Amino acid sequence: MGQLYPDDSITLHTDAYELSMIQTYFEEGIQNKEAVFEVFFRKMPFENGYAVFAGLERIVHYIENLTFSKTDIAYLIDSGNYTDEFIDYLKNFKFKGTIRSAREGELVFENEPILQVEGPLADAQLIETALLNIINYQTLIATKAARIRSVAGDDALMEFGSRRAQELDAALWGTRAAYIGGFNATSNMRAGKIFGIPVSGTHAHALVQTYKNDYDAFKAYAETHEDCVFLVDTYDTIKSGVPSAIKVAKEMGDKINFQGVRIDSGDMAYLSKRVRQQLDEAGFPDAKIYASNDLDEKTIMSLKMQHAKIDVWGVGTKLITAFDQPALGAVYKLVAVANDKGELEDTIKLSNNAEKVSTPGRKQVWRITRKDDGKSEGDYLTLVDEDPRQEESLYMFHPQFTYINKTVTNFDARAILQPIYEEGKLVYELPELDEIREFCRQNLDALWPEYKRDLNPEDYPVDLSQECWDNKARIIKEVHDYVRQLKF
Amino acid sequence: MGQLYPDDSITLHTDAYELSMIQTYFEEGIQNKEAVFEVFFRKMPFENGYAVFAGLERIVHYIENLTFSKTDIAYLIDSGNYTDEFIDYLKNFKFKGTIRSAREGELVFENEPILQVEGPLADAQLIETALLNIINYQTLIATKAARIRSVAGDDALMEFGSRRAQELDAALWGTRAAYIGGFNATSNMRAGKIFGIPVSGTHAHALVQTYKNDYDAFKAYAETHEDCVFLVDTYDTIKSGVPSAIKVAKEMGDKINFQGVRIDSGDMAYLSKRVRQQLDEAGFPDAKIYASNDLDEKTIMSLKMQHAKIDVWGVGTKLITAFDQPALGAVYKLVAVANDKGELEDTIKLSNNAEKVSTPGRKQVWRITRKDDGKSEGDYLTLVDEDPRQEESLYMFHPQFTYINKTVTNFDARAILQPIYEEGKLVYELPELDEIREFCRQNLDALWPEYKRDLNPEDYPVDLSQECWDNKARIIKEVHDYVRQLKF
Repeated sequence: MGQLYPDDSITLHTDAYELSMIQTYFEEGIQNKEAVFEVFFRKMPFENGYAVFAGLERIVHYIENLTFSKTDIAYLIDSGNYTDEFIDYLKNFKFKGTIRSAREGELVFENEPILQVEGPLADAQLIETALLNIINYQTLIATKAARIRSVAGDDALMEFGSRRAQELDAALWGTRAAYIGGFNATSNMRAGKIFGIPVSGTHAHALVQTYKNDYDAFKAYAETHEDCVFLVDTYDTIKSGVPSAIKVAKEMGDKINFQGVRIDSGDMAYLSKRVRQQLDEAGFPDAKIYASNDLDEKTIMSLKMQHAKIDVWGVGTKLITAFDQPALGAVYKLVAVANDKGELEDTIKLSNNAEKVSTPGRKQVWRITRKDDGKSEGDYLTLVDEDPRQEESLYMFHPQFTYINKTVTNFDARAILQPIYEEGKLVYELPELDEIREFCRQNLDALWPEYKRDLNPEDYPVDLSQECWDNKARIIKEVHDYVRQLKF
Repeated sequence: MGQLYPDDSITLHTDAYELSMIQTYFEEGIQNKEAVFEVFFRKMPFENGYAVFAGLERIVHYIENLTFSKTDIAYLIDSGNYTDEFIDYLKNFKFKGTIRSAREGELVFENEPILQVEGPLADAQLIETALLNIINYQTLIATKAARIRSVAGDDALMEFGSRRAQELDAALWGTRAAYIGGFNATSNMRAGKIFGIPVSGTHAHALVQTYKNDYDAFKAYAETHEDCVFLVDTYDTIKSGVPSAIKVAKEMGDKINFQGVRIDSGDMAYLSKRVRQQLDEAGFPDAKIYASNDLDEKTIMSLKMQHAKIDVWGVGTKLITAFDQPALGAVYKLVAVANDKGELEDTIKLSNNAEKVSTPGRKQVWRITRKDDGKSEGDYLTLVDEDPRQEESLYMFHPQFTYINKTVTNFDARAILQPIYEEGKLVYELPELDEIREFCRQNLDALWPEYKRDLNPEDYPVDLSQECWDNKARIIKEVHDYVRQLKF
């Protein structure tokens, strides 16, 4: 089949440089040196005011199955790049790290750790690519879904994007992320099976073409299904599709549940109003109008402004590919690594691009909310030995424009990074998908509307504690001093 | 783990409406009615002059494994939506259709069939979503890769996008598509293992941070690897990274193969020139400069215009997500279906959106080239009983603007749709990946440069034969006449 090694392992789903580095660490005997990596992204996706974290369940699957398979080992041996000792090390590899992470459905923001890996240098390095691959996509789609939910109000939202998704995994995990972000159902049967997401979908144009006309097709469908949504735009929505649907609905009476009609092309604003009128006049005021045709939050908002009579929105391409920004740029950066005495030392990645400079040290993210109404004050990043819950008042300042600051009292502080793995052992019980979806909804409730509007939202504060800020400044200076004294 | 049914089947990777329709066909006893579906897309991706077809190998894997697993069946039974007879039918389901397809690496164009499924209505309907899911993504990425190759000349191109891909499958199959489109290597080890694509990658910033400085990190790496590319921008490219790389290269001498240095941030045009100078002055004129930082065909072209001294391009996000157009809109349309006598009758999908009108009939695509120099004249779509190879001259006209026409003589006609499955049996030997890549290269050679330029390419002719055009016009009229006489 053109495949060199049959694949049932995703352990090699890593970039070559991870394994090259691990090889160096192993050969130099420092593969178990303690290290801390953090995942964060530098810019909010879609210029949105928040992002919805997703991907953790998939990450747990990945970590649980993280062993080099026989064919993985065979491939590495065949490459001729590795010593026998290193191959033996990989054969016996088991992930022994500690992972703390935001929970799925948690709101997360730019420039704060959303997942943290602490443990043996090699273990933490190996998983970089897969973690980013998963988080970047699933968080992006959950966020896009939440944006679409925010303009759709209480209307039903259907995920219809499988055929346009970027390969099979994206269709599957993308629709799960969409459900977390507030979608109601999916067309993907496999996602229905695996995740228990409600599935939705009746028929395509092909059914009408097979029966050569709308009426015969709808009638055949109605005789073999109780729930019926008829697709009315195969030949002519107003003149043939809708009248045929109405005729079948009248003929079948109580034998079917005539849920409504779907329009997949044409001018949605105009057509939906005409169709609404047709359905109402025929005595079907409860029949719903489904629409699908390259929809996203912008087109849905525009259709609502035009008072389009659409009840159910089928969203495909623009959601499942996050069309207007198809990548979240989350990165995985070393923030601390043990020195020769085994003590963790904070570390930085400088860069000529200012926004690529990382914040050193193992951190915690605290969500600061007001005790009185539960509303958000911002996120507060501390080094791990700090605990803002012990403080009476919190001085919060912008990490770049420090004159923007406030003192917060009477607050709650909630830790965002939660223990998932401890020294290789799963300590977290994965929640049910519906719990995750509800958690996301509650988190959005706690956010001020100013952070949630779809255009030009207010910047949500992500502030460093004084200690964290001072630590960063000190390390930047140390590196600058070091570079300045270099002589070659 | 939150998964309701363990999943090792992708047979349910289909939209709910496929199964709903199949249910109707089964209950009405027409599930084996002969039908023909064709896959095509309506707009060239990236406004490019051509697309590179990819996805067929994955489709063959899918079809070869297309049976409803025990858990698939259990899920369907649990849904309560299906009769026992229908469930039995699914249990025994085996794909019995005929598939004709463009080969991977073939150039394909808008509004022409790139894959055709003929066979039992139910069989052909079931596979719609998975086929589109695969073709849409892989063809998009192969095309994007070919665009990038077209501006990179003979420079080495590395696919570095796994961490930003839309979930795992996209990283894996996307890098295969990139290789087909002309990339040289990937960072993804799993793609290296499964497809035999050369893998590339040495180390990340984390290595330098672990050793606290460039020199110690590069030295450690050099002592454990023969091939060395040092990443020089962790702290300061010019003052620390490059001098450290040079020092290590000099110290190690013949013990390593100093391939060059990689720059991942900063002003690439400026830095690459400075670094080139540093390497040359140190006596390493053959050391190459690798660059990676949100590159695509536009930035590569711009850097080349600025005479940046970059030899190897690492391309990530913008390629693997097809960032500027992350979805190809290929669709799957019924073009013919048997009547009650069992004879195929051509069928159409009309629409209020003119571009959504399909071309009826089972078709073949003929690539017309000039006998003298092998250059392309355009594609010629015929109904399946026509054979332009029998013609002395071919009248080719634009299917919308029919005044644009030409008569071609002394031509070769090559059939693009090749037999892959015949009545459920695989009849095609999947080529080696390197053959596919070379086939793509040869196909691009046959295309006039006017169709290949990255901006505003000439429209490649995709013409209908007179018979095909008349057939379409006749069926549109039939449908219009039918709709006009409808009375409700």
